[in-house]
Amino acid sequence: MSYPHYSTGYNTSPSAPPVPKPQSQQPGVAYPYQPPPPSQQPNYSYNYGQPHNPMMAGGYGSPYGYPPTPSFPPGTHPEVIRSFQMVDMDRSGFIDAKELQQALSSGYQRFSLRTIRLLMFLFRNPNDDLRTGPKEFAELWSCLGHWRAIFERFDRDRSGKIDAAELRDALYSLGYAVPPSVLQVLISKYDEQKGQRVDLSFDSFVECGMIVKGLTEKFKEKDTQYTGSATLSYETFMTMVIPFLVAE
Amino acid sequence: MSYPHYSTGYNTSPSAPPVPKPQSQQPGVAYPYQPPPPSQQPNYSYNYGQPHNPMMAGGYGSPYGYPPTPSFPPGTHPEVIRSFQMVDMDRSGFIDAKELQQALSSGYQRFSLRTIRLLMFLFRNPNDDLRTGPKEFAELWSCLGHWRAIFERFDRDRSGKIDAAELRDALYSLGYAVPPSVLQVLISKYDEQKGQRVDLSFDSFVECGMIVKGLTEKFKEKDTQYTGSATLSYETFMTMVIPFLVAE
Repeated sequence: MSYPHYSTGYNTSPSAPPVPKPQSQQPGVAYPYQPPPPSQQPNYSYNYGQPHNPMMAGGYGSPYGYPPTPSFPPGTHPEVIRSFQMVDMDRSGFIDAKELQQALSSGYQRFSLRTIRLLMFLFRNPNDDLRTGPKEFAELWSCLGHWRAIFERFDRDRSGKIDAAELRDALYSLGYAVPPSVLQVLISKYDEQKGQRVDLSFDSFVECGMIVKGLTEKFKEKDTQYTGSATLSYETFMTMVIPFLVAE
Repeated sequence: MSYPHYSTGYNTSPSAPPVPKPQSQQPGVAYPYQPPPPSQQPNYSYNYGQPHNPMMAGGYGSPYGYPPTPSFPPGTHPEVIRSFQMVDMDRSGFIDAKELQQALSSGYQRFSLRTIRLLMFLFRNPNDDLRTGPKEFAELWSCLGHWRAIFERFDRDRSGKIDAAELRDALYSLGYAVPPSVLQVLISKYDEQKGQRVDLSFDSFVECGMIVKGLTEKFKEKDTQYTGSATLSYETFMTMVIPFLVAE
């Protein structure tokens, strides 16, 4: 099976809109998440991009002053901050799975809790892998923007679904050349009537893609020379894989 | 960390009751699922243990005579057959996840659909991995009986829960010497309040155990000399692991 080749870079047009239109299949379209144009950006007096005094009204932070106040990376788009704040009712600076699900609903759509847990696992903060902080949320949001653009590019009929071949091409665009056998096990679980055409929603696409991304990154850590194979001890294999499995 | 040693065989007392009492911690207790004593066995005139004419009243089988009628292995306990038949309303000889959940409720308890899907995956029939046939159901039932006996042996206070150390010992009894690091990632997902004591129900124990069993068997296939490590290609790694992940 041959994979399509995309000889042109995707980052050559940084001013492109956040979501490519279906007709914009020409090379050079930008795929990273782009904030709305400046005219849509509200004024906001509070600088979320920098650490701030947690005792200030409206600020994030522990009333005890410790642990250090989680904050958004400099330059985080206000829409991202607003989506986070909207669900972080206790202003703890961390959100749980259901809150993340709600926060992403505003910018994207409602994801299944399975996908949410996978996202939380892949974008976990090292100190608390049950909750998502501002930094991880901003990264996750940006990544989803990128993935949505890819998804919509391959969803040519704008049905909100992509098929197996489009999934393969979409993953390839994301940098993952998934072998046919891997693609087959990946999609077989979404193929409710065996052998029928598989249509993946954006939710399922994100789930599939995050599985590929997460496992591939883990594998690469053990294949530092990129030989395509790795020698793993039983213990390494198990500790690599189990976190993906019991993500409840 | 040292593991306990059980120097005596578990199969030396085939007439032992199906579920060991907590006080029966002495060596030599039988752990496999044992059918009730003969006096409890009903008479049943229909031989489910052998292939039979699918057109016979009450028989399993396709009205078209093909594929071959699925049947229970010879000697399958009638209780197992009854549990299966009770939920196989269309007498197709196959049951889906929800039906399996219901069938196991009669002999064991209600398992989560996550655990059910893991069981279906590990005891899948090669022709149809979305449904469970009589042979797989009988194997699954027997395995659960074995696991329940182990679980109850380690649940010394009969609370219906086991902790992390008991999980380790229980898995060891099942033949899996799980390294501490693996145990840690395994239980961390059940540790809702970080660092607190983890108590696993039988459902969670089965989920954990089936993950260990399934992954260990996969790994052993690639480590035929039992050296404790295996060289895996990226493709092999991905196709080994993904089926465990997208078990929806």
